[in-house]
Amino acid sequence: MYPCEPVSKTRFIEPSRVEAQPGAIAWNHQKLAAGWLAVKVKDARIVVKFDLASIRTSELQWIDLRLEETNVTAPSGDPKDKSLHRREFPSGEMGRWMHDFIRELYPICRSITGDGVRQTLGLLARRIPLQTHEVPTGTRAFDWTVPKEWNIRDAYVKDPSGERVIDFKKSNLHVLNYSVPVSARMPLSELRDHLFTLPDHPDWIPYKTSYYRENWGFCLSQNALAALPDSVYEVRIDSSLEDGHLTYGECFLPGRSADEVLLSCHVCHPSLCNDNLSGIALCAALAGSLAGSPLRYSYRFLFIPGTIGAIVWLARNEDHAKRIRHGLVVAGVGDPGPMSYKRSRRGDAEIDRAVVHVLGHRGAPYSVSDFSPYGYDERQYSSPGFDLPVGALSRTPHGRYEQYHTSADDLDFVTAEALAGSFTTYRSVLGVLERNVTYLNLNPKCEPQLGRRGLYRDLGGHAESKTSELAMLWVLNLSDGAHSLLDIAERSELPFEAIETAAGRLAEAGLLRECP
Amino acid sequence: MYPCEPVSKTRFIEPSRVEAQPGAIAWNHQKLAAGWLAVKVKDARIVVKFDLASIRTSELQWIDLRLEETNVTAPSGDPKDKSLHRREFPSGEMGRWMHDFIRELYPICRSITGDGVRQTLGLLARRIPLQTHEVPTGTRAFDWTVPKEWNIRDAYVKDPSGERVIDFKKSNLHVLNYSVPVSARMPLSELRDHLFTLPDHPDWIPYKTSYYRENWGFCLSQNALAALPDSVYEVRIDSSLEDGHLTYGECFLPGRSADEVLLSCHVCHPSLCNDNLSGIALCAALAGSLAGSPLRYSYRFLFIPGTIGAIVWLARNEDHAKRIRHGLVVAGVGDPGPMSYKRSRRGDAEIDRAVVHVLGHRGAPYSVSDFSPYGYDERQYSSPGFDLPVGALSRTPHGRYEQYHTSADDLDFVTAEALAGSFTTYRSVLGVLERNVTYLNLNPKCEPQLGRRGLYRDLGGHAESKTSELAMLWVLNLSDGAHSLLDIAERSELPFEAIETAAGRLAEAGLLRECP
Amino acid sequence: MYPCEPVSKTRFIEPSRVEAQPGAIAWNHQKLAAGWLAVKVKDARIVVKFDLASIRTSELQWIDLRLEETNVTAPSGDPKDKSLHRREFPSGEMGRWMHDFIRELYPICRSITGDGVRQTLGLLARRIPLQTHEVPTGTRAFDWTVPKEWNIRDAYVKDPSGERVIDFKKSNLHVLNYSVPVSARMPLSELRDHLFTLPDHPDWIPYKTSYYRENWGFCLSQNALAALPDSVYEVRIDSSLEDGHLTYGECFLPGRSADEVLLSCHVCHPSLCNDNLSGIALCAALAGSLAGSPLRYSYRFLFIPGTIGAIVWLARNEDHAKRIRHGLVVAGVGDPGPMSYKRSRRGDAEIDRAVVHVLGHRGAPYSVSDFSPYGYDERQYSSPGFDLPVGALSRTPHGRYEQYHTSADDLDFVTAEALAGSFTTYRSVLGVLERNVTYLNLNPKCEPQLGRRGLYRDLGGHAESKTSELAMLWVLNLSDGAHSLLDIAERSELPFEAIETAAGRLAEAGLLRECP
Repeated sequence: MYPCEPVSKTRFIEPSRVEAQPGAIAWNHQKLAAGWLAVKVKDARIVVKFDLASIRTSELQWIDLRLEETNVTAPSGDPKDKSLHRREFPSGEMGRWMHDFIRELYPICRSITGDGVRQTLGLLARRIPLQTHEVPTGTRAFDWTVPKEWNIRDAYVKDPSGERVIDFKKSNLHVLNYSVPVSARMPLSELRDHLFTLPDHPDWIPYKTSYYRENWGFCLSQNALAALPDSVYEVRIDSSLEDGHLTYGECFLPGRSADEVLLSCHVCHPSLCNDNLSGIALCAALAGSLAGSPLRYSYRFLFIPGTIGAIVWLARNEDHAKRIRHGLVVAGVGDPGPMSYKRSRRGDAEIDRAVVHVLGHRGAPYSVSDFSPYGYDERQYSSPGFDLPVGALSRTPHGRYEQYHTSADDLDFVTAEALAGSFTTYRSVLGVLERNVTYLNLNPKCEPQLGRRGLYRDLGGHAESKTSELAMLWVLNLSDGAHSLLDIAERSELPFEAIETAAGRLAEAGLLRECP
Repeated sequence: MYPCEPVSKTRFIEPSRVEAQPGAIAWNHQKLAAGWLAVKVKDARIVVKFDLASIRTSELQWIDLRLEETNVTAPSGDPKDKSLHRREFPSGEMGRWMHDFIRELYPICRSITGDGVRQTLGLLARRIPLQTHEVPTGTRAFDWTVPKEWNIRDAYVKDPSGERVIDFKKSNLHVLNYSVPVSARMPLSELRDHLFTLPDHPDWIPYKTSYYRENWGFCLSQNALAALPDSVYEVRIDSSLEDGHLTYGECFLPGRSADEVLLSCHVCHPSLCNDNLSGIALCAALAGSLAGSPLRYSYRFLFIPGTIGAIVWLARNEDHAKRIRHGLVVAGVGDPGPMSYKRSRRGDAEIDRAVVHVLGHRGAPYSVSDFSPYGYDERQYSSPGFDLPVGALSRTPHGRYEQYHTSADDLDFVTAEALAGSFTTYRSVLGVLERNVTYLNLNPKCEPQLGRRGLYRDLGGHAESKTSELAMLWVLNLSDGAHSLLDIAERSELPFEAIETAAGRLAEAGLLRECP
Repeated sequence: MYPCEPVSKTRFIEPSRVEAQPGAIAWNHQKLAAGWLAVKVKDARIVVKFDLASIRTSELQWIDLRLEETNVTAPSGDPKDKSLHRREFPSGEMGRWMHDFIRELYPICRSITGDGVRQTLGLLARRIPLQTHEVPTGTRAFDWTVPKEWNIRDAYVKDPSGERVIDFKKSNLHVLNYSVPVSARMPLSELRDHLFTLPDHPDWIPYKTSYYRENWGFCLSQNALAALPDSVYEVRIDSSLEDGHLTYGECFLPGRSADEVLLSCHVCHPSLCNDNLSGIALCAALAGSLAGSPLRYSYRFLFIPGTIGAIVWLARNEDHAKRIRHGLVVAGVGDPGPMSYKRSRRGDAEIDRAVVHVLGHRGAPYSVSDFSPYGYDERQYSSPGFDLPVGALSRTPHGRYEQYHTSADDLDFVTAEALAGSFTTYRSVLGVLERNVTYLNLNPKCEPQLGRRGLYRDLGGHAESKTSELAMLWVLNLSDGAHSLLDIAERSELPFEAIETAAGRLAEAGLLRECP
């Protein structure tokens, strides 16, 4: 039903799967024709062009491989191989990669429909497996209807001398998004009703929309407005609002289970970086890093216009949505603020607990807030008829930073470092979900003798147990079939990583067995 | 079983139900003979005598109508009309009305039986529909027996010169309540065993009782005692303790449901204003303001002597008590301290949640304490054989103010302003109970499109939602049949009022339906 | 199955059971031959030698009687007689008694097996009824096997002059516990691998063990090590590690119920006072004070080597362990730090609530921590296959004091005062368990009239209730068959003692009946 897109333009792969030969690289036994390679060799990170002769794959720690042409599908994965989820990605590289991608997406004028979204999805499809959907205007989706498609070519306000005093070409924020076509001359007094500014930030252009009531307008800085003489202006918006389609993209990565993890980002905002080019870039990085790895869950990334896109997707996938076991709405992940999490409507779903656990052990400030039905598309996923366990993991929450929905949400506002931190956090959360299994202690009466299995120090008398030993004791004590590893991590207040490592060692020693 | 008293002397009615004609006023199509009228006309509050010629009812916002003679029964109510509960009463007027009533009740010497209670109920019956009950001495009520009836005419201690050095006529607190008759001469040394003072407050007279062990005594200020020379005194208490009755009053206002809200106040204390003339006056004001309005619940106001009265009522209404769905003990509501609430034995009954919600959104300091079996008649209502959901909503809790059970609990200690604040708080609580229904979202999958119904602003891009919109989103999100409006108000941390208004607008738009 | 040991050397008995005659004392109609007697006569505490002529038994409040020879078994108890549990023990006496016992146990070199344990149990058996068990080397116990028995006679390191620079005779901590025999000459450089010190505390000798991997070594102070010249040393450990037995002791006090309270202390540490001679002495004092009293529960005191002892006991009593309704691990109860409690794995078992209640009303600082599977033998009792409700009640938790597992955990570190406080606390906890019954209010509808039963003051009007009256009201209110006395104490925040006294008075008045 959701076939994987066969063409992958970019892929993060593991060195262990790479067979390097002079002048070529093979992955999963398919020889890869050509490309460039970002590699980390021991401590140095370098980008090399194609000459693999001098690099031994054993020295590789990370590879970013751009394939010119290939036909690879994501492998269904080896259930025994969990190494991916433990791997440390070089977050610095990844942060720069995401920032570069944002830079490429920035100029495009997106809206809830139209070619801006298509262009954006096109750039995504060069990086991750992506299926694009086109839904015709007029299609019903629950209480909603897919609107007419909006496209825009140019827009300006000219003064009597013919100078563009407001110019869409300089910033697509200048146009009230979804403005109907206009071609008129009018005095400033009349034009003023169609001008929007931000008096509190006189240099910034606000971002405004009017999707569902036909209207037109311009957004500009307060200073620019103040500088306009009282004159007659030529006003022109060269847009179209016609029957067409709503476009969205979907990247599906199949796992061992048909149960899905949903990652959803909105793609409808024009030149705003944090909201939400950051979310698009992070989803691309996550999909790229997961593709080709053995996965427990199937992963579905949605690149959709806000509200109407989520509603359309849910309407078209009403039954399928039951498969969503965990989900996150990805937005506002590039600003330098601390991470913040808004719980799902259920409040204590596994995704809520996984995120809060990861944030709590990350060693950085963070905040957690309860669900509220205002925000991004968690509003739709959490509507009472679906009630999906979908939270929202951001940096500064939407609306809480001054740059929100203004021209100041630009390429400087989002940083490679913040993006990298978000990537690492999301990866850790997904790692918890992937590895949160329940074990049964096969020796439940008293502790097993760890010492004779080499799992416990020989010399007694110490005041404190080592974390690794403590983690083993916790896993043994709580692995009664009713506690998952995350349950154990929460109760022990130890990092999930430590608990999972301990469980792995105990399972290897035959002391635990995974519950079905 | 609980017929409504047909005679109502005072009634707060809604302007919409008033038909004004020059020189007369009609209510529910009954022409009202004569009276005076407190009206609020636009912003000014005025009290006028009877000349209605110059007032258009459309300008009236509130009417306090004293009827000379009428024969009105409380209407059974129109289920569609919820306007009463949203109405703002002019709390200043109401506060003064209550204080005036307290002033009228103050001089009466009440006890748990006797004519003082009858007089008090008589004054109440001039204001609200009231049924009076007389229960004979010796009647069994669970573990208790109705005691002999006590009445008192005079009491004094005279010095050798014949001067009354302690005089019941000056303050009825001077007599140990329920003192048996005494007529004797005795030296101060002997009399002293029967004298009670408050050394910490040398000017105040304490209030003492001896209901269940025959005794006599006088209460007086420490200073008065100190001034008594060592002499022989004439001691006289002209009281009677004889077979008679225990008297209590009941005001029943029928609603659409047979389920009841209980409001209970004790009427057994003599000249003490906060404890509990304030409770009597507040119950009268509440009953007056509810009478004649369409009501969801039936309301039962009990005006009873403390402890024995509650026990007698429960014994006579053992089965009927099951109908009590919510209840409050009304006492100590006139002092200037902040509101305080003592939870019901259950701790999280709807009444508890309603009170805590209202206090939390009132914008004034307040306190909430857990149930304890010491206090007023909640002790009886909460006994394990009944376990009724009855809390106690006061200002400063009993025993926590210095004036408690002393002559300093006088007309100055209670204020019209405090009484008015208590009235408003109680009204808000009852409003929550009346309007706390559960709705079902008829469009549960994704949000409905509020914008096209005029319920949501057209222009997008704002950082913050308006409270009214947020309230609608919360109602839609949680109206899955399992959450009442109070549940939604609690979770959203929005005022019940905002949630209920939002639900009303959504129901009008056909998006919600009330659950049965 | 667990017969009581017939010989009791020391016994705390109740004065009411003592018949005093000049020059002799009889208990339970058995004339006791000879002894000494600590008695409390009214307020004075005196120790007398045998001359009882001048003391009337009715004046005795407490007797510590050491019997020279007797043959008494613990009485099965009179269910009506609860006086024991209310009795105040003279904690000063008891504290000194425990400290004296610790002093006697201190020099013995204990380990998890061997004669040190046997000697220790021998000294215990002179004080309390004790059954000793010997379990052969090689016996399987779940995942474990009883190890070889270790005994040691001497150990030293001699310098070339023949002087013992490290000498087991001076402190048994000098030898790595469970060291295999050694007889060798070696240079310091080689010896150093077998020497353990505590650089942070250069004067202290650490305590180290190597039970399950054959090894040898010496522990010494950092200063002593620094003073050793670089020379060749004679190294000798005269120990044996051979097939033998693991030894443990059990004191069983039968009660009316077969349900048991477990008190478990480890007896495997050499000259360390707080860890755990304090636990041994406290268990002896508790067993002594309970023996001969009527008991609700049966009590089982275990004196076992840590870990392997608990595992062996559980393996031999796998089914029997189900009878354990409450339990405490007793260790580290003699240091001057505040009491600390580690909850059972269940977290809210009755033992957890009883301990927390007692600590909360004790008027001294304390701490409570959640269960963790690291610590003493609660690790085994709480393993998922048993999950017994066993907490750990200590003073400073193990490993949290500097002296832990060093020579500084000596006779000065533990004090009679701290031991006495621990004793009192444990007694209070056991008292709560013994007396935590559930009553039914026989008059559940409204309050009963306490006044006419003499349970309530006659004179009304007071601001505050007395605690005794409040306690009665709470008991009546919550005795609906669903609340035990501990439930009521918790909810009322009154001491258990007050609640239990109130329940006793109400039951006497026929107002309550004990639930079966």
